[in-house]
Amino acid sequence: MESWMGYSGFLLEMIRAAGVEIGDEIVVERPDGSSFRGLLMFKGELSAENIVVIKLGNGYNVGVAVDPSCRIRRVAPGRKPAFVRPPPPPPREGLPRVKIIGTGGTIASRVDYRTGAVRPAISSEDLVSLVPELSEIATVDAEVLLSVYSEDLTVREWGMIAEAVWRVLEKREFSGVILTHGTDTMHYTSAALSFALQRPPVPVILVGSQRSSDRPSSDAALNLIGATWAAARAPFAEVVVAMHAGHSDDAIAFHRGTRVVKMHTSSRSAFKSVNASPLAVLRGQDLTVLDEYNPRGGDGFSYEPGFSDRAALVKFYPGMSPEILEYLAERGMRGVVIEGTGLGHVARSWIPVVKALVDSGFFVGMASQCRFGRVNMRVYNTGRDLLRAGVVELGDLLPEVALVKLMWVLYRAQSLPDVSKMMITPVARELGARMLPEGVEPA
Amino acid sequence: MESWMGYSGFLLEMIRAAGVEIGDEIVVERPDGSSFRGLLMFKGELSAENIVVIKLGNGYNVGVAVDPSCRIRRVAPGRKPAFVRPPPPPPREGLPRVKIIGTGGTIASRVDYRTGAVRPAISSEDLVSLVPELSEIATVDAEVLLSVYSEDLTVREWGMIAEAVWRVLEKREFSGVILTHGTDTMHYTSAALSFALQRPPVPVILVGSQRSSDRPSSDAALNLIGATWAAARAPFAEVVVAMHAGHSDDAIAFHRGTRVVKMHTSSRSAFKSVNASPLAVLRGQDLTVLDEYNPRGGDGFSYEPGFSDRAALVKFYPGMSPEILEYLAERGMRGVVIEGTGLGHVARSWIPVVKALVDSGFFVGMASQCRFGRVNMRVYNTGRDLLRAGVVELGDLLPEVALVKLMWVLYRAQSLPDVSKMMITPVARELGARMLPEGVEPA
Repeated sequence: MESWMGYSGFLLEMIRAAGVEIGDEIVVERPDGSSFRGLLMFKGELSAENIVVIKLGNGYNVGVAVDPSCRIRRVAPGRKPAFVRPPPPPPREGLPRVKIIGTGGTIASRVDYRTGAVRPAISSEDLVSLVPELSEIATVDAEVLLSVYSEDLTVREWGMIAEAVWRVLEKREFSGVILTHGTDTMHYTSAALSFALQRPPVPVILVGSQRSSDRPSSDAALNLIGATWAAARAPFAEVVVAMHAGHSDDAIAFHRGTRVVKMHTSSRSAFKSVNASPLAVLRGQDLTVLDEYNPRGGDGFSYEPGFSDRAALVKFYPGMSPEILEYLAERGMRGVVIEGTGLGHVARSWIPVVKALVDSGFFVGMASQCRFGRVNMRVYNTGRDLLRAGVVELGDLLPEVALVKLMWVLYRAQSLPDVSKMMITPVARELGARMLPEGVEPA
Repeated sequence: MESWMGYSGFLLEMIRAAGVEIGDEIVVERPDGSSFRGLLMFKGELSAENIVVIKLGNGYNVGVAVDPSCRIRRVAPGRKPAFVRPPPPPPREGLPRVKIIGTGGTIASRVDYRTGAVRPAISSEDLVSLVPELSEIATVDAEVLLSVYSEDLTVREWGMIAEAVWRVLEKREFSGVILTHGTDTMHYTSAALSFALQRPPVPVILVGSQRSSDRPSSDAALNLIGATWAAARAPFAEVVVAMHAGHSDDAIAFHRGTRVVKMHTSSRSAFKSVNASPLAVLRGQDLTVLDEYNPRGGDGFSYEPGFSDRAALVKFYPGMSPEILEYLAERGMRGVVIEGTGLGHVARSWIPVVKALVDSGFFVGMASQCRFGRVNMRVYNTGRDLLRAGVVELGDLLPEVALVKLMWVLYRAQSLPDVSKMMITPVARELGARMLPEGVEPA
């Protein structure tokens, strides 16, 4: 069947009869009296034949179901989406220098008008063109290291990113480093960099966006401006994630790299610090710092690269068989972080399996699938029996961070006692500073 | 080495020299000038030799490290923990009748003074003795069905619980049914009962407590009073979880069984409705209902028991191998719910593996590891390619609820198209009522 820009059948005939091109402003009128006005868009391949896709005035694309009794009218000719703006103004003398390293993600992406999908496409240089405000804040030097969806990143890319940042930090020419990154796994990468780049001399800031920069609701510009401001001027020299602090367009939160998760699939304020406040919040030029931090220019920068891919994360659920642990060990894994229930539990049937694996040198750490709080395995008998079987209680380590830490630890420790000891020794503020006495719960 | 109540060595000698018994009020004075006053407690087996465990005035047990230079003084003789109170007052005429079925958990547990741990021990009858206020609200008829930690529950126990509730509902003698339940997996069980007991004629209320009933901060009494009030009088006849709505002791939230998760390891307000408000909140005698509901006494009660144990839940992480899916299929699983990243993604390397499994009749559904929001796999190419490979987009189904639903669906549907169709067809308000058009994101 003939197809044009994703349209076919009776709908394509209606579009042709109306003389409409992609990007033209149209009105779709339905016999029920409803009508939709917007720009005609290319259509996704998975869309049903009777759906016409238009971009509404608020920037959202909607699919409108039509039938032959509907009417499509052309209202105005389209302006083709203009994406690449003029080159940025020349750098101003005396501004701090900030390095931007692109790794991919929506903040460096644009809508593909063939499929309607969003693809990583734009270099960091383009970002500077798109956000001219950056040149008021800093002299930006941008390069593209990777251009991948963040769900495709592995320990290998974490190593490449850490090395690229380390090379920049070693030169001591920049006031801060920014990494543009897909948001899906930004919190895993921020944890990895927190372990690999300890006590950096300047801020290392991961930044992403939840909505691509050609949409009116995009968070890309504000996030990038906030990240650049902090890279140039913030007093803290830590690995942080910079993203919208709330739904309004006026505040950027800086979350500690080992304390942050993506908490919402689509909200612009999707990233939240867990069991902690953000390290700092920026409103305009006002930075409010909410916790202790590693200051700029401090001593003791330590580059500790290397991650093992022989660690796994397993989320427990009712009735789950412990054989998954044996499978992982047989596949060459050297350890696992379990997301247990509540204070850190799994079914009693797991205990002998755990014990046998620990006895063979396999690491088993326990975190909680509850998003907040900390494991405490001394309250119930199951927890106590798991401890006796050799499970290591991971305190308030977030499960995702515990996995990343285990990957980092397994690269540098061989014996199980060394692995276990490193896992519960704080490295990058990933474990609660205030360890509560036995039997006392956090509020 | 000699041991008494968990104490040994120099510490046992100090305790003996002070003439102290378990339960006595003591003061521990340390050379640094600090001192701790409280009741001497039995000590956990995992505790180090130099730790003395005391119950502070606020009800918390703390472990205090001592050395031979410390001093232990007896302040007052102990009152032995009095747990079992007098039997409840006789039932009053004309009150609604409420059935309480015990399945275990902290709300039906007490501290084991041998180990300091908490064990399920008390029957539901004991609970009525412990909370005499219940007899003002309803005539309570209690029985113990199970007495297990909730992390040990499986599809088998879900079936037993559903059947027990069904038998009660069939008799039509009670105004409501309460299930006491451990909190660790209460949200999994509430989802299971929501699918198995559709449109019940009276409320079915799961209730637990985060802190055992012999602690001053216990939430057991208020939760049980709130659950009993709602079982007797609430206008909604749904499967709900009744737990503290906030940190203060004045409100109980009723969360829809398919919309709730345990969000905190230890907080009394650990349970939260996700992507939804609680169905209702009770303050004193004031019930505020916040959503539509199935009313009491409505028609259409349907008992749909049976769960398959051949469904799995897998949380994706960076670098994770897709071979886990093949392993699960080889182990006899018929389907999996993936907790993908962001809007519902996994690494591209998973796509061919997913496709081969789906082609063989294996169900693959996608939820998100972000706690809030909904999957939308039409935004990025990875999502679109996963859909093309046969992944089913699970909307705003919570991953835990999606797993339980898959267990329920696999028991009744054989073909993959039937499984897929049932998974995206709302049964118990587990899927968002307002489905947004393509390209429109929830706020």
